[in-house]
This record gives sequence, structure tokens and C-alpha cells, in this order.
Amino acid sequence: MLTAPDNDLLTLTGPDQPMGQYFRRYWQPVALSRELPEPDGPPVRVQVMGEKLLAFRDTQGRVGLVEPVCPHRGADLYYGRNEDCGLRCVFHGWKFGVDGKAVDLPNVAPDSNYHKTMAIKAYPTREFGEIVWAYMGPRPDDGRLPEVPMLEFGTLPASRRYVTKKRQECNWAQALEGALDTSHFSFLHMPAPGVPSNENADAPADERRLAWIRRDPMPKFSILDHDVGFVVGGARRADGQDIYWRTAQFALPSHSTTPSTLPGENYFGYTFVPIDDHACWIYTYVWNPERDLTQEEIHQLKSGHGVVAEVDEHFIPLRNLSNGYLLDRQEQKHKTYTGVRGVAEQDAMIQESQGRIADRTREHLTATDAAIVRFRRTLIAGARALAQGIEPQAPWRHQAYRLRSGSWIAAQGRSFEDIMQERFGSVTGHIDQACA
Amino acid sequence: MLTAPDNDLLTLTGPDQPMGQYFRRYWQPVALSRELPEPDGPPVRVQVMGEKLLAFRDTQGRVGLVEPVCPHRGADLYYGRNEDCGLRCVFHGWKFGVDGKAVDLPNVAPDSNYHKTMAIKAYPTREFGEIVWAYMGPRPDDGRLPEVPMLEFGTLPASRRYVTKKRQECNWAQALEGALDTSHFSFLHMPAPGVPSNENADAPADERRLAWIRRDPMPKFSILDHDVGFVVGGARRADGQDIYWRTAQFALPSHSTTPSTLPGENYFGYTFVPIDDHACWIYTYVWNPERDLTQEEIHQLKSGHGVVAEVDEHFIPLRNLSNGYLLDRQEQKHKTYTGVRGVAEQDAMIQESQGRIADRTREHLTATDAAIVRFRRTLIAGARALAQGIEPQAPWRHQAYRLRSGSWIAAQGRSFEDIMQERFGSVTGHIDQACA
Amino acid sequence: MLTAPDNDLLTLTGPDQPMGQYFRRYWQPVALSRELPEPDGPPVRVQVMGEKLLAFRDTQGRVGLVEPVCPHRGADLYYGRNEDCGLRCVFHGWKFGVDGKAVDLPNVAPDSNYHKTMAIKAYPTREFGEIVWAYMGPRPDDGRLPEVPMLEFGTLPASRRYVTKKRQECNWAQALEGALDTSHFSFLHMPAPGVPSNENADAPADERRLAWIRRDPMPKFSILDHDVGFVVGGARRADGQDIYWRTAQFALPSHSTTPSTLPGENYFGYTFVPIDDHACWIYTYVWNPERDLTQEEIHQLKSGHGVVAEVDEHFIPLRNLSNGYLLDRQEQKHKTYTGVRGVAEQDAMIQESQGRIADRTREHLTATDAAIVRFRRTLIAGARALAQGIEPQAPWRHQAYRLRSGSWIAAQGRSFEDIMQERFGSVTGHIDQACA
Repeated sequence: MLTAPDNDLLTLTGPDQPMGQYFRRYWQPVALSRELPEPDGPPVRVQVMGEKLLAFRDTQGRVGLVEPVCPHRGADLYYGRNEDCGLRCVFHGWKFGVDGKAVDLPNVAPDSNYHKTMAIKAYPTREFGEIVWAYMGPRPDDGRLPEVPMLEFGTLPASRRYVTKKRQECNWAQALEGALDTSHFSFLHMPAPGVPSNENADAPADERRLAWIRRDPMPKFSILDHDVGFVVGGARRADGQDIYWRTAQFALPSHSTTPSTLPGENYFGYTFVPIDDHACWIYTYVWNPERDLTQEEIHQLKSGHGVVAEVDEHFIPLRNLSNGYLLDRQEQKHKTYTGVRGVAEQDAMIQESQGRIADRTREHLTATDAAIVRFRRTLIAGARALAQGIEPQAPWRHQAYRLRSGSWIAAQGRSFEDIMQERFGSVTGHIDQACA
Repeated sequence: MLTAPDNDLLTLTGPDQPMGQYFRRYWQPVALSRELPEPDGPPVRVQVMGEKLLAFRDTQGRVGLVEPVCPHRGADLYYGRNEDCGLRCVFHGWKFGVDGKAVDLPNVAPDSNYHKTMAIKAYPTREFGEIVWAYMGPRPDDGRLPEVPMLEFGTLPASRRYVTKKRQECNWAQALEGALDTSHFSFLHMPAPGVPSNENADAPADERRLAWIRRDPMPKFSILDHDVGFVVGGARRADGQDIYWRTAQFALPSHSTTPSTLPGENYFGYTFVPIDDHACWIYTYVWNPERDLTQEEIHQLKSGHGVVAEVDEHFIPLRNLSNGYLLDRQEQKHKTYTGVRGVAEQDAMIQESQGRIADRTREHLTATDAAIVRFRRTLIAGARALAQGIEPQAPWRHQAYRLRSGSWIAAQGRSFEDIMQERFGSVTGHIDQACA
Repeated sequence: MLTAPDNDLLTLTGPDQPMGQYFRRYWQPVALSRELPEPDGPPVRVQVMGEKLLAFRDTQGRVGLVEPVCPHRGADLYYGRNEDCGLRCVFHGWKFGVDGKAVDLPNVAPDSNYHKTMAIKAYPTREFGEIVWAYMGPRPDDGRLPEVPMLEFGTLPASRRYVTKKRQECNWAQALEGALDTSHFSFLHMPAPGVPSNENADAPADERRLAWIRRDPMPKFSILDHDVGFVVGGARRADGQDIYWRTAQFALPSHSTTPSTLPGENYFGYTFVPIDDHACWIYTYVWNPERDLTQEEIHQLKSGHGVVAEVDEHFIPLRNLSNGYLLDRQEQKHKTYTGVRGVAEQDAMIQESQGRIADRTREHLTATDAAIVRFRRTLIAGARALAQGIEPQAPWRHQAYRLRSGSWIAAQGRSFEDIMQERFGSVTGHIDQACA
């Protein structure tokens, strides 16, 4: 439970909000690289943390991210011409490069100062992991920017990953909380009561794991902090005296990885990016550090699988709020817990059902909400510190973002640290570059 | 005409408004019983007086009416599982009975106080006359609730009635005023000028009555108060020296019966229930105390007839504000007064045309608006009294709601009391249980 | 650039705004005459400067323009019956003439004062040039109203003109600024770079003119004030030592004529009428003072041509904001400057792209924006003066609105006054009645 002011502090990321300032210290995904497939192609409207921007790939392949308002008469540069290393307004031909500086002002007298000073707001961009990232914060005094976080999927050959995104009609924070809350698997993603665990084709894992998860609605949670966030482990009884561990990563400010992966299986992760305070993009990535994804896996992911939703050409989930997620009450009664197809869609349904911004003042949390509580404290502390002038350090630890999480089965009585060391080779889940 | 504050006082029924408090002393229709056809069926979203609620029929057939927000993390219980005598949130399995009390909290430690105290807001419900009623007010000190009003249609065998509802896109009060204003029949529901009275197939009564109504646009009104409201009679010249009386009932806080019924004919009534301040449900019922409705009558009512609108599966009128009521200007010129098909639809058109909330500060009322004036005074006085701590008595007079109204033809010079006594056997139109 | 208060002052035309008061000193187009084709036909909803009104043509062919709210109970007179020289409310039959006075109140006692005093707000109307005009301001002390401005197209036989309108989703002022800004032709309406000037079938003029316009993005502007506004001339290099002049008229408060017409060609003009602060109607007229328009020209204009947009039966452009103007990025790359078909549609796209109300506080104007600056100063001065009690004189100069503008090719070094005299026979572009 949060007070109303703390709920605002956690959730609001507009430019003038404390959390908005905090988020702007980190590189943010703003588009998939494939949304800008070619040099001089059509510019693309994007909205990030309430800011309406325009992305375009120039003649040399560089991506510009600019405020789309021509400073001459306020025309929308979206309608502009992307050509010859710049974006030209079609009203009177003013033209700007990817850095926002004017490169041509055809109706301005040659001796005007405008030619030197005129510019539009532009944010630095990078491409990494098939995603265009932007740095939308202030430039540090020495001019040096942090580097894009080295999320493992981005460091691999493209053949070993699948990267996409989906739109969600709610605030970023409750979507992220859904990712950190691995206890809800005991309900939301299960078969209907009475249906054997091996009958749900949409289930995220095999029959034994499902049975363990189903049997224990109250896993015991342990949390380990690290340089850029924390890892959380949920322990449930497995068969015999064994414990079934499911671990998930949180990395600042809004990255997460999923808990089901056993060694050799594909890893899944997401980055939650506010569109505005009432909607977010969830960039979702699947990777396998050891082998290429198969054609069948790619095909499956394109049709929606696990936390990857089935989306249309605009990355809007096909089963969404506006069509009631195509919830089928007969399916819900006799087959699956929700009557909604797809783990990603079930998550979206329940997260969007909390309201555009979840009202955390009326909650009644329990011990299984441990990771959610830690997440909120971490973010609120970071934003508060920044408001007092203390810059966050995580943005400068880009190598610390090589993180994995997943499942492990181990004997009773062992510590979370032991489990992490045994499963990932490090207590925090950090992966040495060499072992990727 | 009302002042702006009085217009607010009359029309606004949110929980914090004086009229909202007053309405909450009365049982309110919240759904048709057939919207919850089976035990453990899908829950149904309802909105009553601005409150967003969820109705569900549990395993034992009882109807729960609850606030649809899970107190754990705020997920919407609409997506929940209605099973084993309760509604279960699909996020983490919290489950609540029709009384709102938690019956299962699977992720809460056994020794937690939550198991005893956790509950969601729930309102008592009853079923009467194929309608689910709820009491949304405070429970009196002695714990005893009033009983549901014994509207006559509800006391009859189902074969003698037809019960439905229709949505209207305006405040409840102006819709009810339309029902009490029987003078508008001389215009709104008539054939076009020049068209004989027997040519309008949609007309609510036979040719003579139509001719009398048409001929006299200024009926003389008499009003008699009774325990739960009042009855109004409008007197027009009939043939020769006869007077054609049309009477209508108003019962607190928002019930009404219609004026056309002659002995032996079907009775019609409605209850106006605020969805919010800008829309209402009009529960509409047809009954014949003496015989079953015929198959032909039922068929006719299902396709819209008289004050029963033609509606879709969501009880939205087919001819409505969004499609301009399918008004046909050629029909209006040559056939009917409005060019809109259906008495109910004509009423909806004109009432919705007054705006979402009619602006009563700019009106110019006349003598034919007598019942409207009495209605406003009665409601405003009741809400004002309650605000001063004086509880209304009508909710406790549930037997007094057995009321009829209709038409009568009588010699000139007789009093309204005489007419009521002769037509209904009582001055107020109250029907003895025996004579039903 | 304007301050925020001045931007409001310029753009807002509601009844209580200074510019709203100023506009109400002038006759305003409120409908095309053909929207009210017959006596006693259906009334038509219109909205002008934020006021929701109803226009109807009565039995004698007169056009009434009234507030559509029946003063009895507030029903919408739009649903009323237009018959026997008045509009009758279908609720209780109250009837009003084109002057707004009650002519029948059937449910009002014969001795009531209502019969003398009851009225609805009504504005005087005139028809001129196939347009219904209204005077929505206060009646001067002597009761005399100004006359409708004698725009030339309205003085000609109907066979010599084509009159239509189009809706635009932005404030009136930025649309008008687009008309006065003839410098944008060098970009917005051009072929794509590299495409010869003779390949764009939508181009507003012939190849030579296009080439001159394209070659010179920075015409030199001259402005001459006159009794009812000003004329602006833009001078570009033509072939050899010649200058290509393009002139445009501005007439108070919101009329304009276009710059391309050479002697013998058709003239084009428009009047910008606020619907509310966020949308406007652009009444658009084409005329030839010397000959009838040909069937081919009429056909072409009906399908959209030059500043005449291609519109649907409600005068909504087919290529509009809601469908992205059907912008084709391939066309934009290889054929036309914008990828949008139609000069009118290109204008609408760029003007609507400035926002519902252009933010003039962030502009950076140049010398080519001279006419825009003059327009703003003129309007703001007029509204300010009126707010101080100084009535504008232009409304009383209806003969001064016979104005033409267009193109001329002349030797270098001649003054704008000379050009106007040579091209139009007067320095201001005013046309003597005789020479029409």
C-alpha cells in the first residue's frame, strides 16, 4: 500500500515529475529498429513519457529523434520530407539534421542569425538489440553520456534472439509489478480447477512444473540486491524433498526477466516504457545464448507465445481491452483459469483491470508481494534522491545489465545465494561476457 | 422553473448528493433477473447512481451485488471465476461470497487477521417481478431493512406480465417528467396534421381517444397525494358532454404508471433508475391483472409497442440518439407528428433532446405542467428533509405501491376523487390485494 | 510571434471574447443556400462562433436562424415541424416564426402574457451569392444594420460562379494565414525535387509560373492598406528581367482572394467562418466576371480543383485529418512535394498540423510572413478598439468588398501600386461596378 502522493511519485513520468526526471537518466527504448527499415524512409511518430516525438532514419542510416514542431510556423514535421541527411518541413522548406540543427532555411535572408542558431529539440539515439534507444535526460557536465545497458539479448547474434513489443493500456509500473510477481502463476495462467495440468496447451512450462506451481499458491520469497536492481527467488515444494525455485530479475529503471527458464531453454525479458502515464510499450525479447532460435520457435513467437503477445502490424495485441480479450466464459468454466488465450494476454487483462493507474492506496499486500514492495521502495528512493541532487549510479553500470533469471530444482534447506550460484554461476545472476 | 442549485438537488444521485442519499433509502432495480439466468454464470457489470458494481448469481441462486475491486491488488473481479458459492479473483485467488465477505485467501498466512476481516462492499438484493433489486443505503439502527415495493405486476403470475428495460441517454428526472406529463400526447404521439386519427398504426389507443386527445391540447389537471406519491388526472372534452380522463401514478422515488388503460386493457408502468447523472435505465412492465398476456401481445412487445421500445440484446433502443432515431422527414411531413417510429422512441427523442441534464432554469411552465411541478416539489422536499435527519416513510409502505392508473370516460362536472373511486375502487388508485 | 494573451485575443470568437464581439459586427456566412433547398423543408443544425443554432426556410422562403431550444421545457427544435410560416416544437406545439417570436402556444391560457412576450433568440439573415448570411451582433442604436459585403462573385449571374464550402479541423485564423501566405507555394504545392514542373497534374498553374515559383522561395512582399483590409503582393524573378507578381486580398474580418489568376482566368476566394475555436468552415467561391463557367470547369470543381477540396455530401474533405489525408509516401518521394492529392488538401494538412489552435508564442517569423503579421495586427487592433468602444467602419463599406487579386508579369523596377493599377485598374484591386 502506498499513500496517494507516493503512488503519484512512483507512476508519473512526465518531464516535470520526479520519476520522469529519474527515468530520463536512463536510455529508453523508443522504437524497434525495423520500424525505421530504410534510410530516408517515412518518419515515425513515437510518444515516450508523455513527449510526442518523431523518429526518422536519415540518408546515412542514423536515427533522429526530434520534437516534430517546425520552429518557423509550428507545422508538424511528420508530414515532412526525409531526404539528403535531414527532415524538411513541407510548408516553407526548413530542414533539420538528426542532431536537430537547421541545415537549410530557404526563406531566410542569407545574413540572418537564424542560420546559425535555429534548431529543434533532438535526443541522442543508439541502436542495440534491434531497438532504437534514446537518452532524453540532461547531458552531464563533462558531456559524456552513459552507455546503453548491455542486456544479454542485445549482445548476441540476431539469429539467437527475437525482439518485439506490445502496447498496454495502463501505467508502466503496474505492468512491471505483474512481471515481478511470480506468485500469480498459481492462478492466472493455470488450467481451470479440475482440468489436469497437462491439458492446457498455452501453459508456459511442462506438466511437472505446472503441478508444483498450482499446488503452492504461497511461495516463499528471497531477494538479493545488486548494482542495477535486484533478483527475487520464489521457492515452492517440488516432488519429494525438493524445492522448485523460480527467479526473476529487476533492473533499473524498468527491465525484468522471467522465472521459468531451465538451463538450455530460451530466456525471456521485457522493458517497460511509458507512452504517457496511462499506457506503455512493453519491449519483449526472447534469446538463447547457446544456439540459434529455430524456425518453428520464430513462427510460434510471431503468433504469440508465453509473454510474447499476438499483435497486429501496429504492435497492438489482438486480444485486448477494447474487445474484452475475447474472454470465453465457457473456456473459463471448463478449460483455463481465465477463459483468455495467451499468457501475455492474461497478464495484460489483469494489469489493465487495475485501472489506468492502479490505486495503491486501497491495497492489502501479503508476504508474496515482497518483490513488488522492494521495487517500489527502490524506485521511490531513487527518484527522491535525484530530487535532492544525488544522481543515480546504475545508468553508468551498463555492463551490469548482463543478467539472467529462470528456474532451478534443488534440495530443501539451501540458501537463495547457493541456488543463484549453482544455476547462473554468480549470486546475482550476472553473466560474465566470456560465458555468453 | 428551478434555480440552478435546485436543479442539481433534483437531478444528481451520486453517493454524496442529497438526492443520492434519498434514493438510497429505496430499493432500486439493478438488473433484470434474466440477465443472470443461471447459478455460477458470468458476472454482469452494472452501474447504479454512479456506482460501478458487479452482479453475480452464486451456486445457490442468490444474487450478489458487489464493488468489483479485489482488495488485494485492485484487480477487476469482473474477470473472476463465479464458482462454489463465491466470486474468485483470477490474479491470486481471493474469493468473496454474495455478502462480500472473504471465504478464501490462498496466499495469506493461516494466522493472518485478513481471514476474518477482509471483505468487499456488497449490497443486499432481492428478486421481485423478474427484477433484481438492491438496497444501497445505510442499514437502519435496528438492522431491519424496508421491503421491496409491491408494484402490482410483481405480485402476479409471470404469465400475466412482460418485463424489460431500455437505456436512455439523459438524467432520470426529465425522463420521469415525460411520463408524468400526459399533455404532450396531444402533439408528440399524434399523426401529422391533416392525417385522420385512425391512420397512425403506432398510436397508443383507438381512434376516438386519439381524436379527443388531439382536439384538446390543454387538459385540466387534478392531483391527489397519497402515502407513496400522488396520482394526477388530466381531463379533456370527449364526445357530447362527456369528459375523457387520463390518470397517471407517481410513486417515490421514481416509479410511474401510464394513463391510457381502459378496464380490461393491459397496464403499463416504469421505474427510472439513474445509471449516472447523464443516463438512466427505464425498467418497463406491462401487466394484465385478469388474464395471461397472449402470445401475440408478447411478440408485439418484444418488437416494441407503446412505451416499450424496440431494443437490442443489450437493451439499447434500435432507434436512438446515435442514429437520429431514424427520423424520416417525409414521414414527419405526411404521416406522423415526429417522423419517428414508436411512442417510446418519440419520448426518448424529446427527453434526450432536453440535454443530458435538462436546464430547468430557463423553462416557462404552464398549467399543464402541474404534475411536473408537484413531482419536483415532492422530491426536493424529501431530499431536503433527509439532509436534516428526517427519514422518509414511503420506503416502509411497500404495500402502498399496489397502484393502477388509466383512462375513464365520465359525465361533465364530477370530481377527480369520484372518477378514481369509480374507475379503480379507491380514490388513490391503490388496489386491495384481494382484487388483484 | 505573439504573446499567449494576444494569441487568444486573435483566435477566440466565442460570444464573450473581444474577437467574438468584433466578428459579430460583420455579416457571417452560416450555410449554403442549397442546404435549405425548399420552403418548409427540414431544419439544419449550424454552429457559428461557438453558438449552436438552427436554420430553416419557412413557407415564404425566408430563412430563420434561431437558438434551437424551446423556452417551454427546453426540447430541441431541430426535431420540430417546419410548417405554415414557423417552426413548431413537437413536444407541446409551441411555434415560432423566422423572427423568433411565438406565433402559437397551444397549451397556454388565452389571457396569458406569454402570447405577447414569448420568443426565442433569432438572428437576421440575408441570401447573397448562394450563401445564407447572418448578423449575430447587437443592433445599432438607430436600428439600421450594415449590408452584406458585395463580394464580386455574389454580384454576378449564378452561371458565372461556383460556390461551396469545406470543413477544417483548426482555428479560423491559421487557415486564413495560410491563404495570405503566398510564399508557401514554392514548397507545399510543388512537384517532388527532380520532377519537372510540367509533370504535376494537380499544379495550380501552368509550367512557367510553376518554374518561377519553385525557383524563388523568398518572394519580396509589398502591402497596401485599403478601406476594408489590404492587398499583398509577392514578387519573384520570372524569365529574363521580368518580375512575376502574385497578389492576394484580405478583407475584414476573414475574407481572402487567391494570387494565381491571370486576366481571363477564373478568380478564387474564400471566407473563413469559425464553427468554434477549434474548427472552421471555409466558404469557397470561384468566379469569372467575363463568361459563364463551362460544364467541364463545374465538373472539375465538384471533384476538387485548386483551393476547392473534394468533399462528401456533408462538405467534409474526402482526404482529411482522420484518414491522414491519404498521404502516399511513395508519391511524396517520387512525384509531389507532400504525397497528398489536391492543393486544398495540402493546405488543410499543413494548417491542421499546426494544432487545433496554432501556438504563435513559439514561432520564428521571416520577411516572407509580412502579410501574416499585417493580418494579425489589423485584427487585434480592431478587436482592441471595439473593446474600448470604437466601432469598426468596414462593416458599413459593403461596396468596398468588390475586390480582385491575381498574377501579373511586369518589368523589373516598377512599384506595387503600378502593378495593381495596370492589372486591376485600381491601386487596391477594387473593381468598379461598371467594369464587372
